[in-house]
Amino acid sequence: MSEILSGAAVIGQSGGPTVVINQSLVGYVEAAKQVPAITRVLGARHGVQGILNEDLVDLGAESSENLERVARIPAAALGSVRMKPKREDCARMVETFKKFDIRYFFYIGGNDTAETAHIVEQLTREQGYEMRCFHVPKTIDNDLRVTDHCPGYGSAARFVAHAFQGDDRDNRSLKGVKINVVMGRHAGWLTAASTLGRRNEEDGPHLVYLPERVFDPQAFLQDVAQVYERYGRCIVAVSEGIHDAEGKPFLQVYAEMSGSAMAGETDSHGNVQLSGTGALGDALANLVKDNMGKIRVRADTFGYLQRSFPADASPVDQKEAREVGRAAVAAAVSGEHGSGSIAIRRLADQPYASETFVTPLDTVAKVTKDMPDEFLAGSNAVSQAFHAYALPLTGGLEPMADLSFEPASPAVQA
Amino acid sequence: MSEILSGAAVIGQSGGPTVVINQSLVGYVEAAKQVPAITRVLGARHGVQGILNEDLVDLGAESSENLERVARIPAAALGSVRMKPKREDCARMVETFKKFDIRYFFYIGGNDTAETAHIVEQLTREQGYEMRCFHVPKTIDNDLRVTDHCPGYGSAARFVAHAFQGDDRDNRSLKGVKINVVMGRHAGWLTAASTLGRRNEEDGPHLVYLPERVFDPQAFLQDVAQVYERYGRCIVAVSEGIHDAEGKPFLQVYAEMSGSAMAGETDSHGNVQLSGTGALGDALANLVKDNMGKIRVRADTFGYLQRSFPADASPVDQKEAREVGRAAVAAAVSGEHGSGSIAIRRLADQPYASETFVTPLDTVAKVTKDMPDEFLAGSNAVSQAFHAYALPLTGGLEPMADLSFEPASPAVQA
Repeated sequence: MSEILSGAAVIGQSGGPTVVINQSLVGYVEAAKQVPAITRVLGARHGVQGILNEDLVDLGAESSENLERVARIPAAALGSVRMKPKREDCARMVETFKKFDIRYFFYIGGNDTAETAHIVEQLTREQGYEMRCFHVPKTIDNDLRVTDHCPGYGSAARFVAHAFQGDDRDNRSLKGVKINVVMGRHAGWLTAASTLGRRNEEDGPHLVYLPERVFDPQAFLQDVAQVYERYGRCIVAVSEGIHDAEGKPFLQVYAEMSGSAMAGETDSHGNVQLSGTGALGDALANLVKDNMGKIRVRADTFGYLQRSFPADASPVDQKEAREVGRAAVAAAVSGEHGSGSIAIRRLADQPYASETFVTPLDTVAKVTKDMPDEFLAGSNAVSQAFHAYALPLTGGLEPMADLSFEPASPAVQA
Repeated sequence: MSEILSGAAVIGQSGGPTVVINQSLVGYVEAAKQVPAITRVLGARHGVQGILNEDLVDLGAESSENLERVARIPAAALGSVRMKPKREDCARMVETFKKFDIRYFFYIGGNDTAETAHIVEQLTREQGYEMRCFHVPKTIDNDLRVTDHCPGYGSAARFVAHAFQGDDRDNRSLKGVKINVVMGRHAGWLTAASTLGRRNEEDGPHLVYLPERVFDPQAFLQDVAQVYERYGRCIVAVSEGIHDAEGKPFLQVYAEMSGSAMAGETDSHGNVQLSGTGALGDALANLVKDNMGKIRVRADTFGYLQRSFPADASPVDQKEAREVGRAAVAAAVSGEHGSGSIAIRRLADQPYASETFVTPLDTVAKVTKDMPDEFLAGSNAVSQAFHAYALPLTGGLEPMADLSFEPASPAVQA
């Protein structure tokens, strides 16, 4: 690599929210302000849209007190965007880069965001404009390749695990079948986190259905009936991405099975809308009601709370999210990398320790990572190996407690 | 009142969960163990069902360490029940009381639970069996009469306020119309709490619909369009109990409007199922989509998380819930009351202070309390007076933060 480039730096945020995405933003600001070669520390509002529109703000002007406050709030403080820039967009972006003398481009997001950073890097190189382009990882889906895990996942996993701990107590208190739908269209990482607060077989969720496996409605009904017979209740964790052997979403399968109109919305690609609707949970609850007779069946869809609930962030996740922002700046000015994505390497489980490293953008862009087989157990459970992997990322979970239920005997006759 | 009765005490838990209901249980155990006249400190599993079945446990045998753990877990640790005992049930309960030499009956729950305690008191008196019967208040709905507020409400309000704070950030980051359905079939207290974390007009929720007002779908659509025009986005808080002028639930109104099959389930009394389904949120989202053209509309139904999420309890609520359990024991052995319900009197808002007092069972049983007019503002908002009332009960909320968004100017030509 060449000498350290002198010029402004800009960062953007892209894709869905996490509760620690602004930790990475603040990590970037803190680190960039310390680098003499970085002349200005800028931010782009709504990601590449802000670069196209020259809607840039001076993050170097923020007080450190306000930055600490912003670090703790969920969802992109700069505003987010879902947009893959085309060739002509990139040409316009380079004009903005030149106009603002920007030599460092940082982009916080998932695999699509890494791809955008990659496109920007290629285009600027073709145009002979020297730049450093870095991807800063974030996603509650935990589906980026190379990295051990993604900032944003630990907090979402903590929320989901806490939600199931509470719902298990709720269900013990007033029994029945309870189905909870968890985010994650393609990979089951977040749904699997529903199990992290369990102490034993009797604690829910008793059944876990992930998109890494084919969802068979008949097997599901048998599973539920079996658990219900054993415990008089059953808690089910379901990924929003469950599908049949051909990859058809369950909601569509159900509509065809039941002859009902297709519940929920489809997008322009014909994909069923999975988030921001209770249709999948309601369909599963109806399936159980129609097949198991008069029992109490309820469904909840956790929805956006999973990615934006502000009061239950994982301290481990907060720290790592801050660190990847700082590490991106360090990598960009190191002279060792023209571009890259920041990844996390796990050093130890107990006590948990990690470090960051740089991986090429094209190793992270586009393709996502499903859960490996070793993290699944059969068709409706996860493994102890997953538990060991994921629990440290939540920052730890307080176990629930039970009364000892010592039977009282009648009083001795006076 | 007569001299202090000597005999065993029993407590039960009834109705829906809260995250502090076991604080009251533990407050009872702590206080009862200190009273020489109370010979044994018992608990009934699943409320009156446990008394009918002689399913009683010795709570005096629990270690204080385990009691502290149990105090922090959500939902009835003894198990709950939804059952109003009939005359013949009460006769059987008296048999259990005699058999176990029980002279003190405590029942944690809402207005139905107070009514049960009242029935038990009357029946035992008729049978000439001397007892003390006390109701210990709990409900996330905050709809008990006499008391300033109900233990359980502050924590649920905190959760809902946090959820809306986070969802507002989510919606700023990726704009659109977002509808969140909040629990509370008859009263709007919990839905109103959605506003407690707002800093200004621009923070969501921008619109709040409560069962204390008639829900007019046309006015709703106009309200949403107006907010959307102003901010490019709109967050709506809706009580599950919204209804038309005749009291017909909106979900039923919508089914008739849209000619679609009735979404959701009805119970044996023909009441529409409101909790444990996403049907209401989805109906409202469809209404907006059908009338506002191509904009992003999403709905979440917060569901049981509101009453059982274990990681966001209000410290004020925890303390008060513990205190009402203790106060019930103190009242029962004071010699001043044969029966009663524990209520809370607010002494000051800032700094917040409260005390407990005893109110007759029949002042709390059966009828519930809606929000007073002074806590509402027009048809779609709540008042500053409500804010002053409810905020202290949450234990306080950290305000969200924004970047200052100082525009960056292009670089000076080199």
